[in-house]
Amino acid sequence: MTHLVTFDAALEPVRVPTGTLLSEAARLAGLNLMQPCGGQGRCGRCAVRIIAGSARRRSSLRLSADDVAAGWALACQTVVEGDVTVAVPPQESIERRLTTDRTAREVVAPPGYDPIRDQTIRRLNLTLPPPSLDDQTDDWSRLQTAIRQESGLAVTRLDLDLLRRLGRILREGEWQVTAVVEDGPAEARLIDLRSGHTPVEAPLWGAAIDIGTTTVTLWLVDLLTGRVAAQVAEYNGQIARGEDVISRIIYASKNNGGQELQQLVLETITALLEAACARVGVSPSEVVKATFAGNSTMIHLLLGIPAESIRLMPFVTAVNHVPPLTGRDIGLPIHPAAAVDCLPGVASYVGADITAGVLSSGLDDAEAATLFIDIGTNGETVLGNREWLLTCACSAGPAFEGAGVLHGMRATRGAIEEVWINGATYEPTFRVIGGVPPRGLCGSGLISLLAEMFLTGVVDKGGHINTTLPTPRVRVGDHGPEYVVAWAAESATGSDIVITAVDIDNLLRAKAAIYAGFSVLADSIGMPLADVDRVLVGGSFGQYINVEKAVEIGLLPDIPWERFSFLGNTAVRGAYLALLDRAARERVRAIASRLTYIELSADNRFYEAFTSALFLPHTDLSRFPTVQAARAT
Amino acid sequence: MTHLVTFDAALEPVRVPTGTLLSEAARLAGLNLMQPCGGQGRCGRCAVRIIAGSARRRSSLRLSADDVAAGWALACQTVVEGDVTVAVPPQESIERRLTTDRTAREVVAPPGYDPIRDQTIRRLNLTLPPPSLDDQTDDWSRLQTAIRQESGLAVTRLDLDLLRRLGRILREGEWQVTAVVEDGPAEARLIDLRSGHTPVEAPLWGAAIDIGTTTVTLWLVDLLTGRVAAQVAEYNGQIARGEDVISRIIYASKNNGGQELQQLVLETITALLEAACARVGVSPSEVVKATFAGNSTMIHLLLGIPAESIRLMPFVTAVNHVPPLTGRDIGLPIHPAAAVDCLPGVASYVGADITAGVLSSGLDDAEAATLFIDIGTNGETVLGNREWLLTCACSAGPAFEGAGVLHGMRATRGAIEEVWINGATYEPTFRVIGGVPPRGLCGSGLISLLAEMFLTGVVDKGGHINTTLPTPRVRVGDHGPEYVVAWAAESATGSDIVITAVDIDNLLRAKAAIYAGFSVLADSIGMPLADVDRVLVGGSFGQYINVEKAVEIGLLPDIPWERFSFLGNTAVRGAYLALLDRAARERVRAIASRLTYIELSADNRFYEAFTSALFLPHTDLSRFPTVQAARAT
Repeated sequence: MTHLVTFDAALEPVRVPTGTLLSEAARLAGLNLMQPCGGQGRCGRCAVRIIAGSARRRSSLRLSADDVAAGWALACQTVVEGDVTVAVPPQESIERRLTTDRTAREVVAPPGYDPIRDQTIRRLNLTLPPPSLDDQTDDWSRLQTAIRQESGLAVTRLDLDLLRRLGRILREGEWQVTAVVEDGPAEARLIDLRSGHTPVEAPLWGAAIDIGTTTVTLWLVDLLTGRVAAQVAEYNGQIARGEDVISRIIYASKNNGGQELQQLVLETITALLEAACARVGVSPSEVVKATFAGNSTMIHLLLGIPAESIRLMPFVTAVNHVPPLTGRDIGLPIHPAAAVDCLPGVASYVGADITAGVLSSGLDDAEAATLFIDIGTNGETVLGNREWLLTCACSAGPAFEGAGVLHGMRATRGAIEEVWINGATYEPTFRVIGGVPPRGLCGSGLISLLAEMFLTGVVDKGGHINTTLPTPRVRVGDHGPEYVVAWAAESATGSDIVITAVDIDNLLRAKAAIYAGFSVLADSIGMPLADVDRVLVGGSFGQYINVEKAVEIGLLPDIPWERFSFLGNTAVRGAYLALLDRAARERVRAIASRLTYIELSADNRFYEAFTSALFLPHTDLSRFPTVQAARAT
Repeated sequence: MTHLVTFDAALEPVRVPTGTLLSEAARLAGLNLMQPCGGQGRCGRCAVRIIAGSARRRSSLRLSADDVAAGWALACQTVVEGDVTVAVPPQESIERRLTTDRTAREVVAPPGYDPIRDQTIRRLNLTLPPPSLDDQTDDWSRLQTAIRQESGLAVTRLDLDLLRRLGRILREGEWQVTAVVEDGPAEARLIDLRSGHTPVEAPLWGAAIDIGTTTVTLWLVDLLTGRVAAQVAEYNGQIARGEDVISRIIYASKNNGGQELQQLVLETITALLEAACARVGVSPSEVVKATFAGNSTMIHLLLGIPAESIRLMPFVTAVNHVPPLTGRDIGLPIHPAAAVDCLPGVASYVGADITAGVLSSGLDDAEAATLFIDIGTNGETVLGNREWLLTCACSAGPAFEGAGVLHGMRATRGAIEEVWINGATYEPTFRVIGGVPPRGLCGSGLISLLAEMFLTGVVDKGGHINTTLPTPRVRVGDHGPEYVVAWAAESATGSDIVITAVDIDNLLRAKAAIYAGFSVLADSIGMPLADVDRVLVGGSFGQYINVEKAVEIGLLPDIPWERFSFLGNTAVRGAYLALLDRAARERVRAIASRLTYIELSADNRFYEAFTSALFLPHTDLSRFPTVQAARAT
């Protein structure tokens, strides 16, 4: 039985038998779909849209449920089952979806769900009755009454600075003003007041910020609609003072180190704020609410709070639930009276990034046992469901964020994000974010590269580079053995892009720490990893990970791929949700109090698990049956 | 029938008939009691104590109810009715009671009344369980729990600055700390934390401050016992920039005038704080709570809030109920997180000094119609009872506070506070605060002097000095006609102390404004002044006033003397009560909302009443029957 397949980009439809892959039908129609992964459904670049007709998806990795509902399908994984009409999008738009747009797309809430169920910040257009000899009410009471009548809120507090300007603002606006008020946890507060009314559709700006040890991410958000107007990220300016939290804490405890680190991260955030605000043409001082996620050390350093006790027995933070702060308190160029909310942490090494991650993943409401892995510098893991929540952390280092790796970089334009190595020639092909000449390797590129090197024998199971291979790609450089991913001629830097033995060692230690973390966690409640119902992978690069390759190097457990979901930067997304909704903020507090922290530093099982995981994929191959099977073939 | 009168200071008892004055009995016993007022019961200097036996007080002017209960009596106003034993105190102690100690004595609450029924500031000695691997609770939560267990307070807020020091304080004190918390209106807040415990009996410092247009008064108070440890007062540093609120507002509205005035009053308060704290040997930064009374303009200028709208139609303030502030907000060297509470005002010209005054006078709970007159620069008056409260204000100027008068001064050491003029020789005698050579004339001295000059014909009813009198005391000086109260040889300044025609004009205008204010108020509800049940006189000098002389010059209404009470600085006393007790603070808020403000500036009756009152005692002598009768004799 044959069917007619109509591609919008082709001159004519083609007729193919039942079961033909759409990618094959496209080839027959004269279209050359990109398939850098070789049609394995891994790279997502052959995505097309089914406009009408019948086709069956074998796999839809890299596509969200919304994507599938909208007709998206991977051409290499979708078979024809009837006449079908297919739209082939411009390659450019696919690239964009796969990279920068993805995070924005993924935060769109499920249909029918309004993320702003109860925004604590409200903007009110007020018209006050002017004072007269018959009504000598003072300005502040007059404004309070107008706010109460408009919103029901009994505003009791405002900055003295605003109180000083109150009379002039009211009179300049001829008693028409725009008030921004916060319905805070203890009382309602006037944040800002301006002369005249403001169009209802004008945005009211907030910022969701995740301070990673390595990467700081900021979303500029319309508090009234939830629209994400800009997403920016940058390396944390503190990196040069130590790559992990321990070295930062040590640095902070010396001389003015704490002040210096505080200043550095404030500069990073300020630069991000300015960049994001510049995109939409507003001043950072328009930001009236900010929520912060970040590990406990990052939050302490942000606020200038000594973090020394975090690294010393018995490892306690100064504060997990930071009281409400303002823009003035925190020293950022946002509105001085802006509501600043640091999300709650749990322990020294399980901070607000994790509680925010759990919030945005929904793990705390999951029916079945779910594993949440934050692939970041601190390798935090949560295992649990709506009944119980366990968590731990391990020091993975910044390798997967592209730091501590010679040619590592963040997952931005110019980063090699996926690599394939020809098993015969050892020649690589790769995909670069933005389709430009490469500048370096981001975390997903490193995972992909390491897996391909392992699969093709460029490295052995100990991670050692085989320098005897007959290819100029393998050589001994200044940093010992290395593999050349891109020659100087094809790179944007004018130098060869390589991965060195030292880089590989860092990657092995990082992946071993993460694997050891979640395996000890599962072990501690006697649950085999295979029984985990879902694995949610977070981290600022998590959304780009190729699960097959992450399993091949032993970073992720070897369980069926469909149980994995890649959530991207769950911390900033959690901060975003808490920025928009009071209930979400309350839920993250509940998560913080529910999470039971397992201290790994005092646990020998962790060191054993770590040592065992320092191989590719693991010393115990029985834990990786599919990898074993693949290598056996 | 005769009785035995035993004086402790006399060699032998004396026997006198029923009805003999104690002062006469004392003379018979060989004692020479001071009677500068000539035995008229006005000066209070013949005060003695009845130890045992029977005597009847005809009058106890200048004695409080507590005094009388303790046996005090005026010897010149008390008659023997049986055998009686009398203690004659050293004259020095009487002087002290009549001057500097009086205010302190008067704030003592009625027996059985504890002014600190519900102090919002609490000091807690806490012992925290140290953290361990089994209890990794963060420092702030650990402290919150300890505070809750000790006090029941759920502290939710603290300054970021204190949060930064938290860990070190806890560890330096080896988990023993002293916490100062505020059980605030919206939430509980940690103000201060120190290593180690604090003796329960150690004071916890607060300040009650009245910012008068002319005089700033500060009481340093132990918040835990209510003890007033120091009372200090000084001229408001703003005086040189305008003597009344209107000229201050005008000054403030030009260039940086507002900032300058704010700075000046902050300097005055700072100097007072430092002086008061030096007396008890503490740093001003130990002050953890401060309440402010003061008229609306003073409060605005203190906070740097533009006051321009106060003097422009329709005369509205920017704020009557100032939101809670902190030491840091207000720019004083008290604890940066100290609770700063500005008591509420009612209108542009009826401010927190009046609501505080009503609070401390108890007028708002009076059964019968009571008149409260604040004899200060702004001449505010309240008329009412527990059912209704009316208020108004008039610009009296600073003459009664000793400002705007050539040799005027505050009622401190060296001030002439009472004067008597011999009707034959025109020679004065006077009493000086502290019994030292005089430096000038304070308000009560000026009233006394003006009354004596009027009674002896040195001035006529228009206030004009009779330059034809046969005495060198009356002369024409640089400022026109003047009367010499003290010659250079007897003064502390080395110059003659005089009162000039200009001074008298200022005094007349001041007393006329005050009289016009309360008479219009009574008029507005159709109540004759004679029907007023009680007259409460406040003001920073009100406690020293001689009622007879104040009536003689037409400052106070001519009603029976026993209806008058002199309360002193009721504003600072109200601030003191609100400093100590939450219920008092709530009551002053209720007073502010109950007070109905009568705007005199739009009331022609006021100008008519003012003009009529520009005479001694008044154009309409029928309003002053006793003065008329006295002059007729």
